[in-house]
Amino acid sequence: MSRLRIGLAQINSTVGDFEGNVERIVTGLERARAAGVDIVAFPELAVCGYPPEDLLLKPGFVTAGRRAVERIAAETAGLTAVVGFPDRDADLFNAAAVLHDGRWAGTYRKQRLPNYGVFDEVRYFKPGRSESLYRIGEAWVGVSVCEDLWLPGGPIRKMSEAGADVVVNINASPFHAGKWRERHQLLATRATDHGIFIAYVNLIGGQDELVFDGGSCVFGPEGDLLAESGSFAEDLLLHDIEVDASFRARMRGLRPRGSSRGTARVVEHIELEAVAAPASRSALPEPLKREHDDAEEVYAALVLGTRDYVRKNGFTRVVVGLSGGIDSSLVAAVAVDALGAGNVTGVMMPSRFSSEGSRADAAALARGLGIELLSLPIEPAHAAFLEVLAPVFAGRVPDVAEENVQARVRGTLLMALSNKFGWLLLTTGNKSELATGYSTLYGDMAGGFAVIKDVPKTLVFELTRWRNGRAGAPVIPDTVLCKPPSAELRPDQKDTDSLPPYEVLDPILQMYVEEDRGIDEIVEAGFDETLVRRIGRMVDASEYKRRQAAPGVKITPRAFGKDRRVPITSAWRNG
Amino acid sequence: MSRLRIGLAQINSTVGDFEGNVERIVTGLERARAAGVDIVAFPELAVCGYPPEDLLLKPGFVTAGRRAVERIAAETAGLTAVVGFPDRDADLFNAAAVLHDGRWAGTYRKQRLPNYGVFDEVRYFKPGRSESLYRIGEAWVGVSVCEDLWLPGGPIRKMSEAGADVVVNINASPFHAGKWRERHQLLATRATDHGIFIAYVNLIGGQDELVFDGGSCVFGPEGDLLAESGSFAEDLLLHDIEVDASFRARMRGLRPRGSSRGTARVVEHIELEAVAAPASRSALPEPLKREHDDAEEVYAALVLGTRDYVRKNGFTRVVVGLSGGIDSSLVAAVAVDALGAGNVTGVMMPSRFSSEGSRADAAALARGLGIELLSLPIEPAHAAFLEVLAPVFAGRVPDVAEENVQARVRGTLLMALSNKFGWLLLTTGNKSELATGYSTLYGDMAGGFAVIKDVPKTLVFELTRWRNGRAGAPVIPDTVLCKPPSAELRPDQKDTDSLPPYEVLDPILQMYVEEDRGIDEIVEAGFDETLVRRIGRMVDASEYKRRQAAPGVKITPRAFGKDRRVPITSAWRNG
Repeated sequence: MSRLRIGLAQINSTVGDFEGNVERIVTGLERARAAGVDIVAFPELAVCGYPPEDLLLKPGFVTAGRRAVERIAAETAGLTAVVGFPDRDADLFNAAAVLHDGRWAGTYRKQRLPNYGVFDEVRYFKPGRSESLYRIGEAWVGVSVCEDLWLPGGPIRKMSEAGADVVVNINASPFHAGKWRERHQLLATRATDHGIFIAYVNLIGGQDELVFDGGSCVFGPEGDLLAESGSFAEDLLLHDIEVDASFRARMRGLRPRGSSRGTARVVEHIELEAVAAPASRSALPEPLKREHDDAEEVYAALVLGTRDYVRKNGFTRVVVGLSGGIDSSLVAAVAVDALGAGNVTGVMMPSRFSSEGSRADAAALARGLGIELLSLPIEPAHAAFLEVLAPVFAGRVPDVAEENVQARVRGTLLMALSNKFGWLLLTTGNKSELATGYSTLYGDMAGGFAVIKDVPKTLVFELTRWRNGRAGAPVIPDTVLCKPPSAELRPDQKDTDSLPPYEVLDPILQMYVEEDRGIDEIVEAGFDETLVRRIGRMVDASEYKRRQAAPGVKITPRAFGKDRRVPITSAWRNG
Repeated sequence: MSRLRIGLAQINSTVGDFEGNVERIVTGLERARAAGVDIVAFPELAVCGYPPEDLLLKPGFVTAGRRAVERIAAETAGLTAVVGFPDRDADLFNAAAVLHDGRWAGTYRKQRLPNYGVFDEVRYFKPGRSESLYRIGEAWVGVSVCEDLWLPGGPIRKMSEAGADVVVNINASPFHAGKWRERHQLLATRATDHGIFIAYVNLIGGQDELVFDGGSCVFGPEGDLLAESGSFAEDLLLHDIEVDASFRARMRGLRPRGSSRGTARVVEHIELEAVAAPASRSALPEPLKREHDDAEEVYAALVLGTRDYVRKNGFTRVVVGLSGGIDSSLVAAVAVDALGAGNVTGVMMPSRFSSEGSRADAAALARGLGIELLSLPIEPAHAAFLEVLAPVFAGRVPDVAEENVQARVRGTLLMALSNKFGWLLLTTGNKSELATGYSTLYGDMAGGFAVIKDVPKTLVFELTRWRNGRAGAPVIPDTVLCKPPSAELRPDQKDTDSLPPYEVLDPILQMYVEEDRGIDEIVEAGFDETLVRRIGRMVDASEYKRRQAAPGVKITPRAFGKDRRVPITSAWRNG
């Protein structure tokens, strides 16, 4: 029985760090070689990181990508490797280099370029037009990139009609909660569509708004999941593919065998020279069955996204304002899990409106997490501002202007610490706030990274409960979970003074923001029309704030940021 | 001699304001009818405004576009109109409706979709595949959209081979300095390529980062500019096209007459019913020759961009911090020209480091412009912050942290005025600052609209001189133009402490930011390598600030914002 040992190396590339990325890839090659792998695959654009965005417009950047692949090729003695890189020829392509036994054996160019959601690939790349199959031992192996298999037909069909047993698919596929289900369903469908094995490798790591979750996996020609990597960590997944299984599946099944126009014939067949059989190739252990848990994965995404943003941007420490509320508590917990308690400073900034409970909760949280806690009163600066503004504000009743001054005093204090000590300031606003504009620009919105900006408030509660459950002893005080949310910018203020309860708000926001539903559709779903119109208006009217918000981790199918590009200036009022 | 009277209606659409846009279009139709026009053209996506961005993902938005066209169609008795709209059928198209004598006679769908620079059209639209010519009187008229004629070949060639005398081209083409030259050269080339008249109509108005300049025009089959609208204002340009001229040009010239495969035959020919000849059609005056002046046009772009951002977002008044420096002086002048002196409040916020000269200059400027001037000292709040921070900062020397506190006190004061009185805060940073990060996030960067964010400092000087020249008596004090630029955040601070002279900095920035030149190339152009590397590093390292910057008017070929999409997290250091 003929077997092909495949390795899927999910690595954490950094955009523009060719040196470091090559190092990770070479390490992966060494581990793969030691494991007796025939072919090892690395993620999409692994040599330059994903997404490189407009750095691709710089010729030097693209040249560095080619040089990186040449360096990697020299390290492929005894096996075959597939590595994503930007390929400049007469145009620019999103490509996969096929490296074999020390030389560059071929290149596949991505044919289907995503240009929706967070993707802008048509901005940079031209689609490729041709396919090759590579003979490795008894197996014919096709190579494809990400989106190439998200739609039926196309290059995967051609490869299967030309006799592919396995299609390697290299990816840089960003996480959102539950996306693994879509991927698995898709991969199972494509594998059975074409009677092939699919070996799917994905990037891991955080890059600005995106986090890549890995979850590399192998599907068999009957649509069965054969092996799966963990998520949010580097890994080399090993699997022995039984080559005859795809042949049997194709001979037996309903599968197409090429049209009368013979598309399959245009696929190039390349025989790779045999390499010395691995000296010792021990049998692989039975693959572990992974369990997926949405709350756990979202939390892990926040941790990895935060850690990578902080470290890849050259920071080691962060600072967080602690109000005693649930948002800042969750952010502090994520920061500790990402960077260690010794690298997190919490700052309490009480005002005349801060409750005793809030101060106690912030202190208890800091103790529970084991982080440093500073306390900086905002009253002196707050009072100074009110006094300077008094002549101009004379005769006006206090309103949001005065509330915002407090938030901005806090933002200024936190930024002063950030500037003085080189700590990155994490902001603590959630998606429900950011959606409705229930936040102060340059105040609580000030900071370099917005950890939970894509987490709706109801999910903030769920994640906090999950984190407390995980820890054994809860690190976030129960009182934080129980008290009604408040900005504490005026006496007895509650979020519900300005917003409906979050159990009502969040589903409306999901329909309006994530699903592009019109006002009418949301009302039909059972919500009060006046309320829906008011919420829609709040979302639209606060676009200017979001445009000046810090980046943060995307964890839903539609995050604010480059995922949702709406004009600030807009007279549209009907959703 | 057969003539076709054409009208090019450059209007100021607002994104999402279907009601208002239809009203402007109907007014244009009435004016065109009164002028005896045969065919009148409105800009690309005129009914919904440009660019609508992700509002196009909302079905209700697209439906509103179709209804708007139906309403307009009913108003076209006695003439033909071309109107841009988003056309939903089996997919979504960027289309031009051809309306004739009260009914919808045809639709052209844009074939070439720009997806570079500020454009994301592949994100939304599918390219069209067919062309039609419309017979109006003796003329065959083709209809196309913007990018369709920016490359040779394609739909324009097919239309000309099928016998078009005139191609109407509807546009939403954003301004940058000197872009009119590119347009004129292109239109002249296309017209002579195909021996046709080209009637080019462009949008005017500001929309977030973009300003559309109009400059609608007609080119003849010999490449001659026959008529041209003014820029930055609504207009109806009228021109009588001599139909036989294009026929003569084609019969005489080198022009292609269709390939052997007969592409021209697939173009549909539609005879529009004759409408009653206009009762009285007086001869048109000789077209005026326009002069173009780059400084004047950039200044006008800033004025229109600012006015439209302010008004289309529902504001009437603005507030500007006046430091006595040239940037804030220019911004105040633009604001006054955009909104009137009565709608602009200047705020002086002196500190212990403010020079007497600066205070005097700010006061003189306010007098010269006739605007209200408030004075709010920053010392009390500044001192309060330093005192609260003293225990934490103990033993550290004062540095940028303390400087930034001052800038943020100013930002907080200005935002307090904005929040209290509903004034939009204009920020005053220029492109050289924003490029190098020589500005304080949440401090001088705070505000809703960044008027000169795309204006390099050297151009700030030029525009200020131009504005002073225009006024007769200079409104911006000469001393402002003469003194060395300073942030005045510490004693005797000068910009040149941190930056090279702007005459050196700006060309480096242009190469690095606007032209994607690598470090090596810039050094080869004659700049010091250490300096170029330092500047490149400053640009890269301040991307996080720009991501939180307010939008402002694009006036160069490459602005920050959606025109230049680079990652914050990046290890790339070679330009």
